[in-house]
Amino acid sequence: MIYSRCAILHQALLATLVFCVCVLTPGTLRAQPPGDKPPLSAETEACIACHESATPGIVADWRTSRHSAHTPESALLLPALERRVSAAKMPGELTGHTVGCYECHALRADKHADTFDHFGTMVHVVVTPADCQTCHPAEADQYSGSKKAHAHDNLVKNPVYSLLMETTLRQMNIEKGVLVPGKASENAKHETCLACHGTTVVVTGTKTVETDAGPIEIPDLVGWPNQGVGRINPDGSVGSCTACHPRHGFSIEVARKPETCGQCHLEPDVPGYNVYKESKHGNITDAKKERWTWDAVPWKLGQDFTAPSCATCHNALITAGGTVVAERTHNFGSRLYVRLFGLIYSHPQPISGKTHEILNADKMPLPVTFGGKPAASFLISPEEQATRKAGLKVICRNCHSTDWADKHFEKLDRTNIETDAMTATATKLLAGAWEKRIADGKNPFDEEIEQLWIKQWLFYANSVRSGSAMAGPDYAAFKHGWWDLTHNLQHMKELTGKRAGK
Amino acid sequence: MIYSRCAILHQALLATLVFCVCVLTPGTLRAQPPGDKPPLSAETEACIACHESATPGIVADWRTSRHSAHTPESALLLPALERRVSAAKMPGELTGHTVGCYECHALRADKHADTFDHFGTMVHVVVTPADCQTCHPAEADQYSGSKKAHAHDNLVKNPVYSLLMETTLRQMNIEKGVLVPGKASENAKHETCLACHGTTVVVTGTKTVETDAGPIEIPDLVGWPNQGVGRINPDGSVGSCTACHPRHGFSIEVARKPETCGQCHLEPDVPGYNVYKESKHGNITDAKKERWTWDAVPWKLGQDFTAPSCATCHNALITAGGTVVAERTHNFGSRLYVRLFGLIYSHPQPISGKTHEILNADKMPLPVTFGGKPAASFLISPEEQATRKAGLKVICRNCHSTDWADKHFEKLDRTNIETDAMTATATKLLAGAWEKRIADGKNPFDEEIEQLWIKQWLFYANSVRSGSAMAGPDYAAFKHGWWDLTHNLQHMKELTGKRAGK
Amino acid sequence: MIYSRCAILHQALLATLVFCVCVLTPGTLRAQPPGDKPPLSAETEACIACHESATPGIVADWRTSRHSAHTPESALLLPALERRVSAAKMPGELTGHTVGCYECHALRADKHADTFDHFGTMVHVVVTPADCQTCHPAEADQYSGSKKAHAHDNLVKNPVYSLLMETTLRQMNIEKGVLVPGKASENAKHETCLACHGTTVVVTGTKTVETDAGPIEIPDLVGWPNQGVGRINPDGSVGSCTACHPRHGFSIEVARKPETCGQCHLEPDVPGYNVYKESKHGNITDAKKERWTWDAVPWKLGQDFTAPSCATCHNALITAGGTVVAERTHNFGSRLYVRLFGLIYSHPQPISGKTHEILNADKMPLPVTFGGKPAASFLISPEEQATRKAGLKVICRNCHSTDWADKHFEKLDRTNIETDAMTATATKLLAGAWEKRIADGKNPFDEEIEQLWIKQWLFYANSVRSGSAMAGPDYAAFKHGWWDLTHNLQHMKELTGKRAGK
Repeated sequence: MIYSRCAILHQALLATLVFCVCVLTPGTLRAQPPGDKPPLSAETEACIACHESATPGIVADWRTSRHSAHTPESALLLPALERRVSAAKMPGELTGHTVGCYECHALRADKHADTFDHFGTMVHVVVTPADCQTCHPAEADQYSGSKKAHAHDNLVKNPVYSLLMETTLRQMNIEKGVLVPGKASENAKHETCLACHGTTVVVTGTKTVETDAGPIEIPDLVGWPNQGVGRINPDGSVGSCTACHPRHGFSIEVARKPETCGQCHLEPDVPGYNVYKESKHGNITDAKKERWTWDAVPWKLGQDFTAPSCATCHNALITAGGTVVAERTHNFGSRLYVRLFGLIYSHPQPISGKTHEILNADKMPLPVTFGGKPAASFLISPEEQATRKAGLKVICRNCHSTDWADKHFEKLDRTNIETDAMTATATKLLAGAWEKRIADGKNPFDEEIEQLWIKQWLFYANSVRSGSAMAGPDYAAFKHGWWDLTHNLQHMKELTGKRAGK
Repeated sequence: MIYSRCAILHQALLATLVFCVCVLTPGTLRAQPPGDKPPLSAETEACIACHESATPGIVADWRTSRHSAHTPESALLLPALERRVSAAKMPGELTGHTVGCYECHALRADKHADTFDHFGTMVHVVVTPADCQTCHPAEADQYSGSKKAHAHDNLVKNPVYSLLMETTLRQMNIEKGVLVPGKASENAKHETCLACHGTTVVVTGTKTVETDAGPIEIPDLVGWPNQGVGRINPDGSVGSCTACHPRHGFSIEVARKPETCGQCHLEPDVPGYNVYKESKHGNITDAKKERWTWDAVPWKLGQDFTAPSCATCHNALITAGGTVVAERTHNFGSRLYVRLFGLIYSHPQPISGKTHEILNADKMPLPVTFGGKPAASFLISPEEQATRKAGLKVICRNCHSTDWADKHFEKLDRTNIETDAMTATATKLLAGAWEKRIADGKNPFDEEIEQLWIKQWLFYANSVRSGSAMAGPDYAAFKHGWWDLTHNLQHMKELTGKRAGK
Repeated sequence: MIYSRCAILHQALLATLVFCVCVLTPGTLRAQPPGDKPPLSAETEACIACHESATPGIVADWRTSRHSAHTPESALLLPALERRVSAAKMPGELTGHTVGCYECHALRADKHADTFDHFGTMVHVVVTPADCQTCHPAEADQYSGSKKAHAHDNLVKNPVYSLLMETTLRQMNIEKGVLVPGKASENAKHETCLACHGTTVVVTGTKTVETDAGPIEIPDLVGWPNQGVGRINPDGSVGSCTACHPRHGFSIEVARKPETCGQCHLEPDVPGYNVYKESKHGNITDAKKERWTWDAVPWKLGQDFTAPSCATCHNALITAGGTVVAERTHNFGSRLYVRLFGLIYSHPQPISGKTHEILNADKMPLPVTFGGKPAASFLISPEEQATRKAGLKVICRNCHSTDWADKHFEKLDRTNIETDAMTATATKLLAGAWEKRIADGKNPFDEEIEQLWIKQWLFYANSVRSGSAMAGPDYAAFKHGWWDLTHNLQHMKELTGKRAGK
């Protein structure tokens, strides 16, 4: 009997060991005892029966997800602050089993133009924010108000930006020694601007593809594959949750890690990621991130992490000592009081995420005129700006004194004024070039001096502001910063002087 | 007795604990019980007796390697798929002990011009693929057919590329107010192009160096140290395994991690690593890599890793659910159907790794003429291209649908056509400049407009293609992408216009 | 009884498990049994009583530090090589408890112009090297001799560099079609150059800030917040320990990780971090760093780490097999024999950290004249250079042969000669432009050709040298390397030719 007890203990020891090896070894995926997982729906089981071998990576990725380990109704049992779902209750058909292939790809089938008969089951290709909204309504709702959700339209339906895209991507030919512009292809747009901004995914018919399981008929999609944040989906919805919670892992960890933001927010045009990496916040994060808990909800400052990353200031639910420091939001501009990048001058954040609807005093769809006058009625008020700035400082003050946080934003505000002035100078040089017929100005984006002017605001002023906002000094100095702001003006002047016969 | 049993259990517990602390603690090198390791050869023991103190880092690095933990014959006992050696049997002198200093540095001594008497033992400085071939013949053989293996000759023996290197690295002086070009030094070549492409390591004699153990006589080597992939070795072999499996750790993990590829495949000229980092594949990898098993053989998709890195698509032995998805290859171009970078236009992969032997219709050693005509007989056929593209899609389809994978490559193919056209336009502008005597064209690489033309293909077209191939949109857009393709043409035109007196 | 023994064992098992989960799980901050920690001083307890909720992140960060886990006198008990403190004995008021808020922020209160009454306790805002010196005198003393400590004065009090800063950061306006330079603001300096070099922190009076605890009166500081390495502090001291040991974690790990150096040593002007990342040393480190012990003292080569990072060669106390390989130094230039970056030509390291006191043969505060003549009396002698180079090689030789290390530095020395020659050519072109009145030369930094000349040494020659010094070949080749050295000369020539009416 003693032997058997020892044997039991021995087994327990072994179990400990196995547990340690399986769960703790860095470099091995965490296993979870299969017995602990809730059942799959019969439909999802059918999907997996084939797809375990047809697309094993998708199934394996899904098995790492919370969707594979919890039922929607169990997700509701968590205390409010710890909840990852925002629906008050779950639809009956989603209860009793995990959230698997069928639960998402067959949801709202009748709303989806991309729904098709797949071995007897009606499924759709593109899972959209309107699908995710079933369990995550608050997140989908917040997101729908963001600039991200409308990133496609804000580019394509804004004639100024659309012209910039066309001009940048058009095929150029030589005819009789002269550069002759052609058109920008849909492919070029898809692989560049729209990769981040989102495509319009359109079902143009059906087609047959050869697969390992023989030929199957599927919807023929234009604008696909794409995970741009403002994708126009075949169910009429906008946006793409997978842009930040990629593929079938639906991971909070991935979404919170700065690399994910960095896919689109990259130098030279949107150097947020690069500046963060250079900043003290980024330094500390790089040094310590392996020991942080990146998927905790709420995200506990000082416990789960000890330095901020993008999600800390911009969107995650943060607590400190049990107190809420910042509420979760998926409207990524809603905590911000000023808009630093992508436009000619800095300006108050727009009220609506649909920035293409802005109209300024010059009747242009831009938040500020070329001369510097803001389209105030489309932008948040000074009072709202003050409220938001105060909200940001609440986050800073967890690790910095009141004075430190105040002075940080004073510096940023001053930087915005100064970089706007440097852009205004470039605009005046450009206007002079147009006046002197050095450039024709018909298309403001297609001659060399015009391209230098674009660099002044899109690359350089923007970098300096981001460097000031996130304390990455090289991006305010020599890396597309003041050095280039100044050098570029000099170069514009050279170009102006030369052509004017000077 | 019970006490003693408890004591045993207590010891077991302690052992578990010690195991956890030694093996699992992140931040501590993994220890392995020394008793488990096979014996060292007497010769290697003699090496280590001195080198443990003379070069302790080398010995410590070796102790982390599989070479220090297994005998060649035990490596043969693994199931075929798990084997890291490809020899059918091992030479007798390598059996019975680990693969230590002596086993590699004294192998094939008579073949090595760099063999010397080192305290009574004949050893050579440079361990080469021909040495490694003893246990790893398949890998060495595959590698010998790759462009990498011939990277030195492909640069140095190709007069076009050799001239580009010379022109870029030459000393420029001012004489009577005129820029006068000198010669490029061997040092400059060694520290730049040949650092990646490989040097020619030549033994010029012997020399005496002062060491902690007194003066010793060693071979005097030119072109050393160097770990370029196409190094010409003192035993007449080509290549360098240590380029990717660095130093004495011989690590599969290091070779598979994207940073290692990034040492040579870096923007602006070969931006593979940067594009990967920006891609969704790279985002996920950065977020999750700490929990992956980077050294498993075979590399099990969905189990050892859940997103691809360079090695997944380009060379590693990949399985999914026990099925082989891709065979191991050390001929890194052999899975690829199109060549994207380093040349003026994209084109089918060359048949041979010796690209300097190509001759196109203009009698130039380039796979495509300046006018865009491929040297078809040196390039893989459309059929072979189709086979390889299908093989790549097999990898994609583990995590993506058939349609997704198809469309991905359709986009890449379209991008190649468009970027080639943008380069053709630049080539026509350059030809015009030569015709108008704005540039002399004697050396096509030494005047400003010529340098802009080089940037058009070597930096910009290349970036756009890499961005399309690996879904890193900023490298197709603003980061050396379409923005620069377009702006650079504009700048070339400015330069042409100006000099032509326009 | 047996049951109870089993229960004990069961508890032990559980403890093991808990230990594993708490201590070993990657992704959870390491917990330390609170009972093991020494007491806090009464004053620090009072600070924490409020600040645990007022600034919870600061308190949490501090709790991760050694300062929170050890008393100064216990730090003295370690064997000499393992000691992190260099004081022979500790002042009485610092013994018996941890080093908490009060211990640092109230130290030397009478020396600090920023000391203020904070709820009855006299504390100061800025903790300085002179404060840290109490326990760490050797480190503070070494640091005070470094160029870093004087980085503010070396920029601001050097009229040449000060003019470069002013010219780069000044506001440019258009008046009657002409670019008219204004002044550089203190804000722009603070957010760029002085962010790394350090500001002068001055107390201008007191002010009231609104806090969660009501209004409090604090010193009004100019030049704050700032953590530049050469900060001029309100106690008259210079420097900032938090630049590398950030905030309240005072971490050796963070200071040793290359990302921290990368905050200031970043391309294009000081590409040390980027070059390291590209190098083989950086590749290996990126692949293996998670398993290294980054905070061990001494730092044991081959045991705590198997490839060098910045701190290995530049400042940490390194041992191998119990032997000291390199002594700890906080004078970061003191191991180096040549200075590669930031100045027009490479040159021997300066003798003093106060480089603004150098005066060359042209009476300029630069270590080398424009013509290339070194200010030898301010620079270390050839003998001292030889000694330092030998010291560096001692580090290399732990992992590389004597010949390897020798040849590495031969290549670097040759690279320095060649890049200096390429800069000299640019200087001659510039002198020609001044002579021909193409540029006026009054301010050598404000015209386009002058800016190209700056790029020649500040970006390109510097990158090539760094690439050679750390074996990052792309930075010597296409990434701001020889390609740009050559292209930039061509561009300068174009600009010269054009304006001269050629």
